[in-house]
Order: sequence, then C-alpha cells, then structure tokens
Amino acid sequence: MRIAVFRAGGARKVGLVSNDGKTVSALDFPPEQAAGGALAVIDALAAGKPLPATVGEAYAWDQVQHEAPLPAQRRNLFCVGRNYRDHAKELSDSVFKGNDANPESWPIVFTKVPQTVVGPRDDIHLPAGISDKIDYEAELAVVIGKPGRNISRGEALSHVFGYTIVNDVTARDVQMRHQQWDLGKSFDTFCPMGPWLVTADELDGTDTRVRCWVNGSARQDGRTTDLIFDIPTLIETCSRGITLLPGDVIATGTPAGVGMGLTPPTYLKPGDVVRIEIDGIGQIENRCV
Amino acid sequence: MRIAVFRAGGARKVGLVSNDGKTVSALDFPPEQAAGGALAVIDALAAGKPLPATVGEAYAWDQVQHEAPLPAQRRNLFCVGRNYRDHAKELSDSVFKGNDANPESWPIVFTKVPQTVVGPRDDIHLPAGISDKIDYEAELAVVIGKPGRNISRGEALSHVFGYTIVNDVTARDVQMRHQQWDLGKSFDTFCPMGPWLVTADELDGTDTRVRCWVNGSARQDGRTTDLIFDIPTLIETCSRGITLLPGDVIATGTPAGVGMGLTPPTYLKPGDVVRIEIDGIGQIENRCV
Repeated sequence: MRIAVFRAGGARKVGLVSNDGKTVSALDFPPEQAAGGALAVIDALAAGKPLPATVGEAYAWDQVQHEAPLPAQRRNLFCVGRNYRDHAKELSDSVFKGNDANPESWPIVFTKVPQTVVGPRDDIHLPAGISDKIDYEAELAVVIGKPGRNISRGEALSHVFGYTIVNDVTARDVQMRHQQWDLGKSFDTFCPMGPWLVTADELDGTDTRVRCWVNGSARQDGRTTDLIFDIPTLIETCSRGITLLPGDVIATGTPAGVGMGLTPPTYLKPGDVVRIEIDGIGQIENRCV
Repeated sequence: MRIAVFRAGGARKVGLVSNDGKTVSALDFPPEQAAGGALAVIDALAAGKPLPATVGEAYAWDQVQHEAPLPAQRRNLFCVGRNYRDHAKELSDSVFKGNDANPESWPIVFTKVPQTVVGPRDDIHLPAGISDKIDYEAELAVVIGKPGRNISRGEALSHVFGYTIVNDVTARDVQMRHQQWDLGKSFDTFCPMGPWLVTADELDGTDTRVRCWVNGSARQDGRTTDLIFDIPTLIETCSRGITLLPGDVIATGTPAGVGMGLTPPTYLKPGDVVRIEIDGIGQIENRCV
C-alpha cells in the first residue's frame, strides 16, 4: 500500500494511492482519526482492526493539496547522524569534530520535534536573522508499526510498517554551537516528508537509492546498503530500554553531498528548490523561502 | 494554583490542591480532556476559556493515586545540560569531555521522550542487562503556557505557565557512547515528575532551592539563582526558530552531586529511593526497582 495524506474539501483525508500514482482514494475514517494522518492506518492495523472502506470518487493526486503522511506525530522523530562513510568524512572537521573519531562505534541518535514536519511540496522557511547556514539532508525514514522494547536485530524488520522520505533540514551553526543537535534540527518547517508512506511489503528499505538535487543539480546519491548501521541495528539501538511505538519515525542518516561538505560550503538561500528521490517511494520537492 | 493529576474511581482526574496540600478537588473536565492531565488547564487558559468548576467532594491527597501533572505530553521534553558550574566541573572529564570547554558559551539542549514521564511516587525501572550506570538529576522544570517563537529574554517569563519537579534519570554509559544524549535519557520511567504543577504567580522559579537525597543521604543542593543560563535565556534559546507550545517542558539542568560525580562513582541500585525537593513546589520520591 501507499498511504497518502491530503486535503480536499477543506478537510484532512487519509487515502490509498493507485498503482500508477495518479489517483488517491480516501479511507472512511472519522475526522478525529484522519487528523493523525497515516497514524490512523498504523494504529488500526497495530490493534488488529480492519481498515475502513474507501469512500467516494478517487481524487486526482495532482488536484489535491498534499500533506505529510505523518503530519501529527506523538513525539520527536528519532534521527541518525553520520551513517554513511563518505558523509562521515565530509563533515569530520566540522559537525563531527567533537565526536568519537570512530564512526563505527555506536550510532549517533538525536531528535527533531514533530512540528518540523511539513508536506512533500511545502516551503522550507529559512530563519532570516537566526541562521544563514541552512543545509539539506536527504534520508530514508523508517516508520514503526509494531510496538516493542529491546527489539533484537533479527526481529527488527517485523516491527517496520513502512518507509517514507524526509529532508532533515539543519541549521549548521545552531547544530554545532549547542553541541547537542536537537535545536538546530528542530526549526519550524525543517522536516519536509512524503510524498506518501510505502508499506514494507512493497519496498525493501535496506536496499534502495537515495538522491538529492538542489535547483536541478545533483548533490547526493547513496544506497541504503551502504549504511554504517543498518536498519535492524538502528531499531535495536533505539529500542534498548525505550519502548518504540506505532508511528515512530527513525530517519536513517544522509549520504555525502550536503551543502556544508562542498568547497566552499554552500547553504540554502531563498528560491532554492531541494528535490529528494528514493527509489520505490517517489519524490519530494520543497522551495526555500 | 497547584494543579495535580491523580486517579480516583479508576479514572484520571485533574484537580486543584488545597492551600494546606492535604486535599485535591477535581475539575469537571470531560475524560478525553482529563487524559491530557494539566494540559487540559493549560490549553483552556491559553485559549482564553474559563476553567470548569470543581465537582464532588475533595479527595484526601494521601488517598488517591498520584500521577505526573503532565502525563501525556505532545512532544519530547527539552532538557538543559551543564547548567550549574559545580556540576559542569564534576563531569568535565566524563560526560562533558567532548564538549566545548567553555560552559558559558551556549546552553546544551537535548530531549527526553514524553513516555519517560511517571508519577511523583512511581518506581524507576533500572534496565537490567542494558545499563548499570543509572544516575539521578534533580531539576526544576519550566512549563510553557503561552506559545511563541523567537521569544526575547525580556518577554520570556510571561510565557511561563508554572513549574514542577523532574528527575532527569540518565543511563550514563548510553548517554556518552551515542554522543548525542537523547537515547540515554529516554529509557522507560526515566522522568519522575510532580508532585503537581505550581503556577508562576505562586512561585518565582528563578530563585528557589533544588535538593536531592538518595536513601535519606543528601546529594544535591543548588539554587536556581546559580544557573549558568537563567530561565529567560533558556526560553529565548529554545524558541529561536522553534515555536514553543503550551505544555512544553524545559528542564533547567541539575546541580552538582550526581552519582557519577562521586568518588568512586555511585550509581542507582534496586531498592534505592531518590527524593527531590524544590522549595515552593514540594517533593517527589521514587524507588528504583
């Protein structure tokens, strides 16, 4: 299934995307459940309940207002830093300077507040006067379906509901000066997400391609087979002592090619358009304003 | 006002504590609002609505099951690291080793997941087999009442709804090995909170005393006048680029005297009882199991 969240007739709807990606059919959730976006589907399936039927005519995907598949998460997104070797290298003298020199020791996990999340075509608001070092990070995001604590690597993939795309937008100066990264990662609009959530039966997230362009110019190109800490390890790590919940997101880290790693470092400016594509999911495209 | 959350007759209730602290009167919120604990009060007042009347007889505080005043937060708690100079010193060779050597440069801000929160008398579950380096941190927690973004220091205190006590329980080895602290701070039951929320008109959080005992033995004794970054600065910092929301918590950091800072380091073990008292609020007491 591809689960999309959108607005039509002034209301948030949760729907299933057609195989050709051209239409979306709304599921018959009451408005208070639809408010949670794809959480309505994840919660229903986690509770062993059937999905409601689709209702009414299918909408043309191009004609509706796209929202993030998880527009209303219940807690911060878990995010992984320094999880591709080339990216570990490109920022070894800046963001990762104070960190353990061995990138293979333990994953670095931080968070973003849920209110960073915006839709797959929404604008990224550059925080004028606060930071002019705003950077993109193309990432595959894992969405948890089955709750669990102390999940072993071997069991981990059975807890995955599906996958989506996020742009882990970052204020580099704020990220570094506070030493802990959460603030510099949590500015309003700093997590474009979408275009929809693809369930794990339709995509092998452990082997897919993550690419990013800025204004049409290729910047990032990685494969999740190259993750330093693979998806089962990340789930095992995040669930040690911490109960993972349905709807939790783990953003798996970004490949080399971020703006800060360029020579000279090149940050996002008003009018820039960041496009991220992940094979088997689709693409998101967000303009900086 | 002192706003307490408790269970009586099998249901969560939000109530006002009497002046002598001996009884609590339930406010007449519908169950779905009472589920949010003190958020029901914070949201009502933030929306300019009157509080509902109290209903029924007052309960004896000792006879009800105490819950955290904010048992169901909407996103991770913001927490401040290294915010008392003596504490900065005691962990300068361990937790803060990789950090900017100057503790006065910028606040260190990390997060704890909302599901860490337990009540003022609940047990702390030591994660056997995962970490045996569990430590306490007594802290004053600021609760936001009025939303805002880019809040100036001068305006900051007008955004404070009130204050409560938290124990920022920490798995020291996990905190350090992942470099970012969120995981080591987010184990289930790692945020005892309470006993209630005191509104800002009844307590000057910028000048109060924070103390902690383990098994009756004094460990921490600080005053919030000694914070490296005071409460207005913390609110200014956390709201730069990030909209603060009613119900957000900012835990202000812990004084010297944590278990890791002792010689030799002394961590919590089953049966230990941690008691934290803050003048003008009250106390929480939690047993480790």
